[in-house]
Amino acid sequence: MVSSIQFDFNQHSHRRFNPLTDSWVLCSPHRTQRPWQGQEEDNEVDTRPSHDPTCYLCPRNKRAGGTLQNPDYKSTFIFENDFPSVRQDQPSLVDDSGDDLLKVQSVRGQCHVICFSPLHDKTLADMTDAQIRPVIDAWINTYESLRPKSYINHVQIFENKGAAMGCSNPHPHGQVWSTEDIPHETAQELKNMRAYRKRHGGGSKCMLCDYVRTETDNDRKAKSSTAASALASSVPSAPVRAAVATTADGSRVVCENDSFVCVVPFWATWPFETLVLSKAHLARLSDMNEQQKEDLANILRRITCRYDNLFNCSFPYSMGVHQAPTDGSEEHEGLSHLHLHFYPPLLRSATVRKFLVGFELLGQAQRDLTPEQAAKRLADCSEVHYKAV
Amino acid sequence: MVSSIQFDFNQHSHRRFNPLTDSWVLCSPHRTQRPWQGQEEDNEVDTRPSHDPTCYLCPRNKRAGGTLQNPDYKSTFIFENDFPSVRQDQPSLVDDSGDDLLKVQSVRGQCHVICFSPLHDKTLADMTDAQIRPVIDAWINTYESLRPKSYINHVQIFENKGAAMGCSNPHPHGQVWSTEDIPHETAQELKNMRAYRKRHGGGSKCMLCDYVRTETDNDRKAKSSTAASALASSVPSAPVRAAVATTADGSRVVCENDSFVCVVPFWATWPFETLVLSKAHLARLSDMNEQQKEDLANILRRITCRYDNLFNCSFPYSMGVHQAPTDGSEEHEGLSHLHLHFYPPLLRSATVRKFLVGFELLGQAQRDLTPEQAAKRLADCSEVHYKAV
Ligand SMILES: [Zn+2]
Ligand SMILES: [Zn+2]
Repeated sequence: MVSSIQFDFNQHSHRRFNPLTDSWVLCSPHRTQRPWQGQEEDNEVDTRPSHDPTCYLCPRNKRAGGTLQNPDYKSTFIFENDFPSVRQDQPSLVDDSGDDLLKVQSVRGQCHVICFSPLHDKTLADMTDAQIRPVIDAWINTYESLRPKSYINHVQIFENKGAAMGCSNPHPHGQVWSTEDIPHETAQELKNMRAYRKRHGGGSKCMLCDYVRTETDNDRKAKSSTAASALASSVPSAPVRAAVATTADGSRVVCENDSFVCVVPFWATWPFETLVLSKAHLARLSDMNEQQKEDLANILRRITCRYDNLFNCSFPYSMGVHQAPTDGSEEHEGLSHLHLHFYPPLLRSATVRKFLVGFELLGQAQRDLTPEQAAKRLADCSEVHYKAV
Repeated sequence: MVSSIQFDFNQHSHRRFNPLTDSWVLCSPHRTQRPWQGQEEDNEVDTRPSHDPTCYLCPRNKRAGGTLQNPDYKSTFIFENDFPSVRQDQPSLVDDSGDDLLKVQSVRGQCHVICFSPLHDKTLADMTDAQIRPVIDAWINTYESLRPKSYINHVQIFENKGAAMGCSNPHPHGQVWSTEDIPHETAQELKNMRAYRKRHGGGSKCMLCDYVRTETDNDRKAKSSTAASALASSVPSAPVRAAVATTADGSRVVCENDSFVCVVPFWATWPFETLVLSKAHLARLSDMNEQQKEDLANILRRITCRYDNLFNCSFPYSMGVHQAPTDGSEEHEGLSHLHLHFYPPLLRSATVRKFLVGFELLGQAQRDLTPEQAAKRLADCSEVHYKAV
């Protein structure tokens, strides 16, 4: 169909490509105004005490299961999960059937819990840069201590925050699931980053280094706005060419410091999804220097604080670190580029969540708000926590 | 690590391969006993009237938006969604930038709503085979009427049932999102079915025809149980070979009739996920003969009734039909094998849901209950609805 109106990224349906997962996201920006008659979440006002005698993560308390007791820890506290999804002590299974319909492999591993601090009511958003720093050290120590183990080839560090993310305990904590296999998401990212490198001349070419440059390069911003003016003054024609100005003008940056940038990625699935990228090509957390460790603590505080301020609530999310697998592969190490994903479920308030259902499960990911609109909302939030004002 | 104990699919962590999506699912069966302190869903007792004057889907009522009125419909009722995710009347966008980091395409299409019946309180689980038949006819008519349109290359039929699946209106209805692009999930399935065909000698070889045979073949069942006895009496050794008996013994079949079989697939992600497969290699719903249409109505009633009886509640799910795209490709038509996916979120009761979070978003899909355990629970449910007893 030939049309004489200009394509508008804020009005017209389009799909965007996720180069990390090799999949598409449908974006339907005109749909942000539809009515909501569905389920709303409880907006639990955060009135937690700093120590909860019934919490199995607080210092000195009994753990889930009832036999172990937590020490009187003063900073971070790491222990093995009492209900792990993978275990070290199980037999191996080799599937030599050649069957490609019923393929199965055993998976050994270990699961750890990291309490961010002794305080039951301090989330990353409430902590200072200096208080977050020990969490990063705990991540590094856990990764490095697991790295030499033969039955562990990947260490997945993540945090589920809030009941809306299925988190079963409000004491701020993260988890580490370390497995014999490289999980699907990391394997896909490595595969797609390998293909990108190959397509762009090999060597040490990195998709995420290029992406950091695309989102932050001032030269490109200048060029884009020239292109934008040119487009705006030209006679609209159909089919309309993609307006560079809408795709590479810095409009997805939420915040940054010398070592990290936080963006709503061009291909975000969740309404306020963000991606925290190392500006340097680092394979893993433990490759960071002192300044980079401080800058990571800084950017984590700033993005989680902005999240809380977005809807004046303790903002739920799943967050995780993607870094080099511990399988000893030099190729994997060279391809890996340290980054963190935040996947938050809230849509338009503290009580309305986004569901990944129906078309999303059977067709493809779909969003209403554009990534640029989401980035603007987050960029407009304060970095002083609403509870501290 | 060499172990002297036998690998047990009900105790030991393993991953299973999903050949339709080319991804893995981590299965942690020992974990089904962990404690739950997280969010529970409201268990809304189903006391809906058969006509609700405030429902914008009931006959004769005003629709959302307030200008249109529903007719006094007596069977199914199809209309264009008042808040569509894709629209026919928008400009095209051609991305000729060559940029492979910021790739974008316009997506035109149409969205329809199909009310299953005038009755506000009749879900598929409450309907008779004869009452479900018009729903199938409505799906076929919608697909066939959209098929010739040049801006529609794929028709996705689905149903979101229940507030837990983000369904914003309790009146039983499904949706049809028809798009210019072939959505990710269908594109992945076609790609993987193409690779399977190639790997197995080409011709008309079909992954899902083979899978139907694997799950239902009585010869194979007999062979498996011989292998199982053999394994049971052998001296355990490590690494243990995959026990055929646990992978192809009919233990994932929930119910079947002459034309369809319903299984918990070997690679299920959701606790009680099922896959309804046509026994014959049909490309699309409209290729069914009269008997097959009746049998599809029959199997839909039986699986949705079993779902309701599992936890004595109106069981939430997202369900959808995968069939041939409408892009006119003969290759796609030849590869497509009609099937329906049910993705239900409930875990262990009407109020505890499974969250896809943390490791699942950042690593890979994970489940506790084995697919065989889930299939047994569903196979043990009655096909007489609990409200009718
Ligand atoms: Zn990543
Ligand atoms: Zn499918």
